[in-house]
Amino acid sequence: MRAVRTLASPLLFAALTVSAQTPHVFGYRDFTQQAKWDAAFLPVPDAALAGQHLKILTATPHWASSQQDYATAVYVADKFKAAGLETRIVPYRVLLNKPVKISIEAFNANGEKLMSGPSPEHVDPKKHGGDPFQDLPNILPAFNGSSPSGDVTGEVVYANYGSLADFKKLASLGISVKDKIVLVRYGSNFRGVKVYLAQQYGAKGVLIYSDPADDGYFRGDIYPKGPFRPESGVQRGSVQFLPIYPGDPQTPGVASTPDLPDSKRIPLADLKGNEPSIPSNPLSYKDAAPILKCLDGPVSPRDWQGALPFTYHLGGTSRVTVHMHLEQDTALRTIWDVIGTIEGTDASQKDDWVVAGNHRDAWVFGAVDPSSGTAAMLEAIHGLGELLKQGWRPKRRIVIGSWDAEEEGLIGSTEWAEQHASDLARAVAYFNTDVGVSGPDFKAAAVPSLKQFVREVSMRVPSPRGGTVYQQWKTVQETDAGNHTASTLGATHISSLGEEDVRVGDLGSGSDYTPFLQHLGVPSTDIGSEGPYGVYHSVFDNYNWFTKFADPTFVYEQQQARIFGLEILHMADADVLPYDYQLYGKEIAGYLESARRRAATSHLTLDFAPALEAARRFESAGAAIRDRQLSPPPNPASLNRALRDAETSLLNPEGLPHRSWYKHTIYAPGEYTGYAAVVIPGVNEAISEPDAARANAQLAQLTQALNRASAVLEAAK
Amino acid sequence: MRAVRTLASPLLFAALTVSAQTPHVFGYRDFTQQAKWDAAFLPVPDAALAGQHLKILTATPHWASSQQDYATAVYVADKFKAAGLETRIVPYRVLLNKPVKISIEAFNANGEKLMSGPSPEHVDPKKHGGDPFQDLPNILPAFNGSSPSGDVTGEVVYANYGSLADFKKLASLGISVKDKIVLVRYGSNFRGVKVYLAQQYGAKGVLIYSDPADDGYFRGDIYPKGPFRPESGVQRGSVQFLPIYPGDPQTPGVASTPDLPDSKRIPLADLKGNEPSIPSNPLSYKDAAPILKCLDGPVSPRDWQGALPFTYHLGGTSRVTVHMHLEQDTALRTIWDVIGTIEGTDASQKDDWVVAGNHRDAWVFGAVDPSSGTAAMLEAIHGLGELLKQGWRPKRRIVIGSWDAEEEGLIGSTEWAEQHASDLARAVAYFNTDVGVSGPDFKAAAVPSLKQFVREVSMRVPSPRGGTVYQQWKTVQETDAGNHTASTLGATHISSLGEEDVRVGDLGSGSDYTPFLQHLGVPSTDIGSEGPYGVYHSVFDNYNWFTKFADPTFVYEQQQARIFGLEILHMADADVLPYDYQLYGKEIAGYLESARRRAATSHLTLDFAPALEAARRFESAGAAIRDRQLSPPPNPASLNRALRDAETSLLNPEGLPHRSWYKHTIYAPGEYTGYAAVVIPGVNEAISEPDAARANAQLAQLTQALNRASAVLEAAK
Repeated sequence: MRAVRTLASPLLFAALTVSAQTPHVFGYRDFTQQAKWDAAFLPVPDAALAGQHLKILTATPHWASSQQDYATAVYVADKFKAAGLETRIVPYRVLLNKPVKISIEAFNANGEKLMSGPSPEHVDPKKHGGDPFQDLPNILPAFNGSSPSGDVTGEVVYANYGSLADFKKLASLGISVKDKIVLVRYGSNFRGVKVYLAQQYGAKGVLIYSDPADDGYFRGDIYPKGPFRPESGVQRGSVQFLPIYPGDPQTPGVASTPDLPDSKRIPLADLKGNEPSIPSNPLSYKDAAPILKCLDGPVSPRDWQGALPFTYHLGGTSRVTVHMHLEQDTALRTIWDVIGTIEGTDASQKDDWVVAGNHRDAWVFGAVDPSSGTAAMLEAIHGLGELLKQGWRPKRRIVIGSWDAEEEGLIGSTEWAEQHASDLARAVAYFNTDVGVSGPDFKAAAVPSLKQFVREVSMRVPSPRGGTVYQQWKTVQETDAGNHTASTLGATHISSLGEEDVRVGDLGSGSDYTPFLQHLGVPSTDIGSEGPYGVYHSVFDNYNWFTKFADPTFVYEQQQARIFGLEILHMADADVLPYDYQLYGKEIAGYLESARRRAATSHLTLDFAPALEAARRFESAGAAIRDRQLSPPPNPASLNRALRDAETSLLNPEGLPHRSWYKHTIYAPGEYTGYAAVVIPGVNEAISEPDAARANAQLAQLTQALNRASAVLEAAK
Repeated sequence: MRAVRTLASPLLFAALTVSAQTPHVFGYRDFTQQAKWDAAFLPVPDAALAGQHLKILTATPHWASSQQDYATAVYVADKFKAAGLETRIVPYRVLLNKPVKISIEAFNANGEKLMSGPSPEHVDPKKHGGDPFQDLPNILPAFNGSSPSGDVTGEVVYANYGSLADFKKLASLGISVKDKIVLVRYGSNFRGVKVYLAQQYGAKGVLIYSDPADDGYFRGDIYPKGPFRPESGVQRGSVQFLPIYPGDPQTPGVASTPDLPDSKRIPLADLKGNEPSIPSNPLSYKDAAPILKCLDGPVSPRDWQGALPFTYHLGGTSRVTVHMHLEQDTALRTIWDVIGTIEGTDASQKDDWVVAGNHRDAWVFGAVDPSSGTAAMLEAIHGLGELLKQGWRPKRRIVIGSWDAEEEGLIGSTEWAEQHASDLARAVAYFNTDVGVSGPDFKAAAVPSLKQFVREVSMRVPSPRGGTVYQQWKTVQETDAGNHTASTLGATHISSLGEEDVRVGDLGSGSDYTPFLQHLGVPSTDIGSEGPYGVYHSVFDNYNWFTKFADPTFVYEQQQARIFGLEILHMADADVLPYDYQLYGKEIAGYLESARRRAATSHLTLDFAPALEAARRFESAGAAIRDRQLSPPPNPASLNRALRDAETSLLNPEGLPHRSWYKHTIYAPGEYTGYAAVVIPGVNEAISEPDAARANAQLAQLTQALNRASAVLEAAK
């Protein structure tokens, strides 16, 4: 590998450090000492080393529970240890399906075969350099995590993105999906939601294909000429009913430790409705096109048309029949989280954990997803290791997780979080990275209390494009140049209300912050650097793609390591927890105003007054405690405790209606979106239903939560 | 032909007539007598007869100046005579190009042929019934009217729709079209504007293709399965620089009568800049795709991507070379308008003409464009003929025109209007139809003074879907179901400001109202009934397409005949001219407010106050005269004269900057749009430039025109 020059000079760090010496960093009485640690940290994360980590981590397919996956755990654990972290490889025993046989065939009305697949993912080796990874061993056929086995034959109905609106539209057009095989395209929602809805509407199977309109040639040049999905590219992925609960499907709320007796696991037969019971499989557009082209029945609504070169019809007739034969080996398998710890030194706060993590398992090679995040994380840890050598010790305990089986449904993180739920009640933050780097445009999502924290960190890191990451982030947002396609992180970035600064998105789901924030109430952030990325969850998300299109010199890897590292450092060492509850209250009031308008549009009579009053009380309590945060008492431990407990107070122990694992009253993945956040989900989903009684009950729960949180802040000593 | 049952029963007409007896029809002291004539008229236009006219008119290709075109003139003249109209076939001698040889070839960098065309327009005769017309004789190869001959070879640049913004974008991306062949797609503007801009930017040739995104499979099923453009379908059309002036290019402002000496014609060499000097030709996407697919250079802006199944690049390199060899026989040819007249009987108003017309020439068979309009017009005349037999005589003179060579640039109508300019200063209306019927959704465009007139007429005609045409029109607009693609009429329908009633569009250009309104100031309307129509200007716009997709039982033909006939009847017999100048003034004030905002955005310092004051004065004068229109004097002749002269007062004798043929200060086809109206064009185009001095001068001209018009109304006796 050629040497990669670090773009930012020590001089720039000095400059950043000088500006840091103004006492304006929220959470610090005096930033002088921290500025020195920052200056010591920032030069350490190394672009070339990040590239090395990436190359090694992506050398072979490393599907969760495979021996190659274990090898990556060992590699990561070694790096943790080398940096001085107390390190353990922590196994869990969880339910995973592995494809034994995947066969999809389509026939026309005369019984003639239209396609037989899935086709292998393959590009022409002679054009644009081909792809050096596509023929390596151990590539599993494209499949859906959580799909059951099945041998079904049926007529095909095209259901666009498979959203709730799409299924309702089909019904309104008189097209039933009952006992049909539903063909849907990727996009708009989480793929598990497509299956969730198809199953509820009575379908017997689901095929999910990647339309070139969404991440193929319609978006730009296809791999290997460009970064978008080629004809044979398939998006693998879990169809778990993530919005019901993530993690090992048999153990919601319970950790699937190796010694967990089978009697503590919910029998598969009892999971009905909470897990897919119909088979589903992803397809390339190469394989989907012959099916779609042959469909007759009504012309589809025109906004259902994709970019394949024919008119899309709805089907539902005997003109096309699909035979799906999936044999899944669904069994308890061992997965491995890697956990590294740096003990805290502050007597009263050393049990306050700062947790940070990324997953490590990949559908195939996983260059962008997740190894770009892991490579950056390892360089952040490299930096922490250097500080440890120089004598730095954090006030609070730092816990780094390299999660396994995220792709199957956030399993490694969820099981670990469920195991450590009581400790995590004192965790002051969870910092996530996943798709760490797919291009040059920095983006972030966070709970409102940490939005300004992320911005401040981004102000302290130089951008390879000049200036700070914050400045580039702002420029890109202002010019709208950073609207990229098809990444998990992108999907969570719903713009927030009423902010004039760079927008930090809301946390939905699709990555490992979910158990921390939405189950346990740990304030969380998610960061990444994005670009045009059309090969998500395919064979082609590999080192060749990455070095051609995402980050050839790994300078965005370095940037990501620096931001991730500073998040950890600042949260571990701040005098006062840098949460902004005033903004949080303001955002919640905004969510309530929006919900009130939606309810009015639906002619629902709801009483928003108490909740709005509670939100304003929370905002006032936030403003008051913010003044105290700016002038903290000599021992801020109890102030910090109150600050932390306020977030916990936003949990509703009952959870959301018919998905009680989700406890947070402000954020959840939408039941019908999956990736995208639904804010004040209990209220908003009841309005969507519409169910006035449920909405009023949820408003009451929300009001109680807000008043609890306000009381905690108001009582802070 | 099977018999077609008239859907509306005499009872319904009676019902419409009863409601008409309330004295609320604007322009009538007492509607009783007119209601009787309406009731006598409405049952006459016959669906089956309209179908017969259509079948006969579309039996062969009838390109302007051909013997088949002359045969249609004779057919139309016979129908005029049969109805009792004084009828003449009026010849003009005008410049037309006819293709002798059209050859387009494309080569890759190795000199290998990528395509050789144009391919004939042809669909599979075995699928979906094929097309019974495509193999008939006398189909000219697809070509552009007004394209010169040329034999050019060059590299290809893709320029999206060939709009001004598109050419500017290319320049900003560093892609020059100088000495290149520009490949553009149809849509967004008039095709002549694409050539106008390409020529100004230095291109040596232009290819204009139909992208399936705009009227092909992306919009719906293609012919003969559905109504959209098939792979080989080509959109012929004129590339005349219509926004400079229409009509015979050598005689702007002068009628090309057969006896006009050549010395009165502008030599071709002197037309430079006002006529295309570079060759251009239309292409199907079948022929365009191999060129476009092979282009390299930068990926095109993503909103330039069409629906062909590859990523569009900008080209401009030697990777693709096109050789265009066009031989045009450009010569003076004879065309034939048919003019039918019914004399007026009112002593003081019989020289006030009510003009109505449609063109008759077609690119090929021309079922929708224009024969659907002609068939309806003939049935309207059938109705007038019946009234004549029953003793009806109009107050005002009725003049019906069946124009020729509209497709080449509104030539037949323009030459006739130029010949009769002084008479037309007293024409009280020009009613246009062109694409009379392409489906069931009624639409209209009009000067503001006639918008309510069109609505009232539509309230008096039953719809085949039940209720009145007005009610269906409103329903379709409210549900947005009537947004169809690619018709000339559709393109003129810019929604008007501040109206809560059904929207009547503004008149841009692309049909024969242009010389009447924009050159001579005759208040005009344009009406049609639309549907999904993707075969515009192709071989497939024929009787087979029409009866499959537009109007199988000709009931919308009948509807169109009824509306067109009532427009003529009511305008010919109204006591007081039913112009609404209050609304006109209000709309102009709205246009001025919009222009002021645009100017502010461009930081232009303009003085809008006098023009706005003049618009408000015009609105007040309109309100005052409206009161008099509602209670007219015993002899309204001088009131009517004032009402008519107000529109003439809106003409600026100097015309628009660098296109002086266009005299109207409120409406013109946009210099860079062609079809779509630009309102207060002198002002708005100066703002777009931006040119503050010109804008202020144009504002002054507009102010004068408005004050002239106000003075005319204020002085009315």
